[in-house]
Amino acid sequence: MNLTITDVRLTPILVADPPLLNTQGVHQPYTPRLIVEVETADGVTGVGETYGDTKYLELARPFAEKLHGRPVSDLNGLFTIADEVAVDSSRVSGQVDVGGLRGVQTADKLRLSVVSAFEVACLDALGKALGLPVHTLLGGKVRDAVEYSAYLFYKWADHPEGVPAEKDDWGAAVDPAGVVEQARRFKERYGFTSFKLKGGVFPPDEEIAAVRALAEAFPGHPLRLDPNGAWSVATSLKVADEIGGILEYLEDPALGTPAMAEVAAKTDVPLATNMCVTTFAEIKEAFIRDAVQVVLSDHHYWGGLRNTRQLAEICRTFGVGISMHSNTHLGISLAAMTHVASTVPNLHHACDSHYPWQSEDVLTERLTFDDGKVTVSDAPGLGVELDRDKLRFLHRRWLDDDGALRERDDAAAMRLADPDWVTPTVPRW
Amino acid sequence: MNLTITDVRLTPILVADPPLLNTQGVHQPYTPRLIVEVETADGVTGVGETYGDTKYLELARPFAEKLHGRPVSDLNGLFTIADEVAVDSSRVSGQVDVGGLRGVQTADKLRLSVVSAFEVACLDALGKALGLPVHTLLGGKVRDAVEYSAYLFYKWADHPEGVPAEKDDWGAAVDPAGVVEQARRFKERYGFTSFKLKGGVFPPDEEIAAVRALAEAFPGHPLRLDPNGAWSVATSLKVADEIGGILEYLEDPALGTPAMAEVAAKTDVPLATNMCVTTFAEIKEAFIRDAVQVVLSDHHYWGGLRNTRQLAEICRTFGVGISMHSNTHLGISLAAMTHVASTVPNLHHACDSHYPWQSEDVLTERLTFDDGKVTVSDAPGLGVELDRDKLRFLHRRWLDDDGALRERDDAAAMRLADPDWVTPTVPRW
Repeated sequence: MNLTITDVRLTPILVADPPLLNTQGVHQPYTPRLIVEVETADGVTGVGETYGDTKYLELARPFAEKLHGRPVSDLNGLFTIADEVAVDSSRVSGQVDVGGLRGVQTADKLRLSVVSAFEVACLDALGKALGLPVHTLLGGKVRDAVEYSAYLFYKWADHPEGVPAEKDDWGAAVDPAGVVEQARRFKERYGFTSFKLKGGVFPPDEEIAAVRALAEAFPGHPLRLDPNGAWSVATSLKVADEIGGILEYLEDPALGTPAMAEVAAKTDVPLATNMCVTTFAEIKEAFIRDAVQVVLSDHHYWGGLRNTRQLAEICRTFGVGISMHSNTHLGISLAAMTHVASTVPNLHHACDSHYPWQSEDVLTERLTFDDGKVTVSDAPGLGVELDRDKLRFLHRRWLDDDGALRERDDAAAMRLADPDWVTPTVPRW
Repeated sequence: MNLTITDVRLTPILVADPPLLNTQGVHQPYTPRLIVEVETADGVTGVGETYGDTKYLELARPFAEKLHGRPVSDLNGLFTIADEVAVDSSRVSGQVDVGGLRGVQTADKLRLSVVSAFEVACLDALGKALGLPVHTLLGGKVRDAVEYSAYLFYKWADHPEGVPAEKDDWGAAVDPAGVVEQARRFKERYGFTSFKLKGGVFPPDEEIAAVRALAEAFPGHPLRLDPNGAWSVATSLKVADEIGGILEYLEDPALGTPAMAEVAAKTDVPLATNMCVTTFAEIKEAFIRDAVQVVLSDHHYWGGLRNTRQLAEICRTFGVGISMHSNTHLGISLAAMTHVASTVPNLHHACDSHYPWQSEDVLTERLTFDDGKVTVSDAPGLGVELDRDKLRFLHRRWLDDDGALRERDDAAAMRLADPDWVTPTVPRW
């Protein structure tokens, strides 16, 4: 058995994305992702995926070069070589970035977002080489299926007129009735029993009405609302006061640890975050201040599946809950999320996933949700297979793009419908 | 490849231990350890070791039964089945225990101390089955050798007269000159360049004098003093004030997080602990109060090598240092410590090990220190081999014992020399 990496392939792609609304704008019709493949001397291939914007590609290329000749089993070494990859300081704002709502941008976080794809690819290859599923490489699953929540979005029926886009069959959802209808279809199609509404799009009273309508339509189903930090502390507290009783948790009502701590101090409604705790460096302050009660991990930000497990352990140690955030992603990442989630004992909330919104994928077979759950694969590696034709097709789309879509920018996408749109200042309400 | 566990063997043993002094008394001439073997359907065997006192054996037996039929790769599952093993409440004092100075006694900690031996045995077997060293199963080594410190003890030349014991050639060390001479031999024999003195034995002024003598004899060598919580806050601060400048850190000067926090608040000398942070439950308070600057992990307490890595990650996240504690242990545990230490990037202090004091072992070949370091084995599993004759011999000693030595009790051992000895109340000075 020769575990040495002899080839690394990076394939940027553009995948169709419906016109989903958030506080910064609307999803582009196509969003960039990066597919990573590592191949060993024995010809075993592993796959991973991460963000595909240029700033990630810029780091992935030198990183890939450093991987050559190393064993796929050297997972700790990925962080050592990541530290050697220089990050262009212009890529690091120290601010919350646009478009992806991915929290603070730091050099380390950019690196970890790249490492994550390689880590997953290495785990996939290692698992295949050893004949073991990825969850076994993470110490073994503690559950056979992982529960996901329905990720509800305010959305338009179509992308702006004249903009090339794939058609979707979900229709519009811009009011409580539309949100409930969307939830009903999510439940019918996939069996989800938890619902998360992406908020921060309409004035809080309208979103409160939508959550109330969901509670009425689906009594007893866990509900979440996530305005992506669009609210002031006062507005956050008002919303918590009005619908806290029917929420499983309120996600990032206000932006940043100080504001979240202020909200948390004055309400019993649990606060979740994927914006103020997105790196290990942000944990200490947030936990000491009791600013958040649930951290929504994202293995892309956090540097992979093993780091996600470490985050979960830190949360457990500090009495903080853990669940999983999602940005637009494909089946490779859903498989990765499912493997790691299956190994985390203290996962007590359904995970988020955009996957149902993605009509395109790079796998020969799509992953499926049954009763809102994804069954944990016991096949070697991730248990997925790359479809090279699909990959080529989506890569061709990326090659053909003039650059307009290669950087995800939800505000720019919104300007195609509303030329006067500017990224709202925070707090928006 | 069939990874199913088909046999588990538990072998309690008594191993020779020199008359090393600590604040609670003296080491017994023989100390109990438990050797664990797991065997897979393919006949691959893995080994682990942990404390051998009856309270550990009581838990290890039902635990071993539950392991039958499970795969050695199901490391997360070890914690699930540990939770199912009932702990006799009389074994759980909630107090710091006698003899081993192992910190607080809780049901969870007892369970984890047992799990650790099985986890190491499973990792050893899994590594052998896959042809991978244990460090690879932990994500890969980030260094090729692990540095250890010389563990200096005040000691008598011999165990009390008339007490059956093995003879050692180290002689007595009951004053600064004796400590320096012991250190010199440690350095000559093993190449150690860091020195830790177990204190709390003599009045602080005498131990201060010993540390000063070490500093003079070995300029530039990192020095540590560990009185096992024997001092008051005032005494701790006095010692910190007098010799803080020549100490790498001061270890557990006072007992418990509140006292340690008080000391830490008033000195710049880093405080290390293996007494107030010995379980995940103790971390939050200690870290929020900045009570400790270095946690000395012990994979036996913490539930194994993977938990040790998680502890290291928590420490890194909170800006706390990490190194490794040692109680009396054999080569299996030294190999395990070396594997995990090789994978921890933020290990910036030499680890402690009692191993040089152990003239007996259960391995075909002893591990060696070169320049104070143990080379990380790249052989499959731990890279050690059980010597069944030696194991049988030491187990026979355990069988022949009338029970007096099966529970380690340093105060009882001291009473054989000084019938009036009682475990000192804390703070002793």
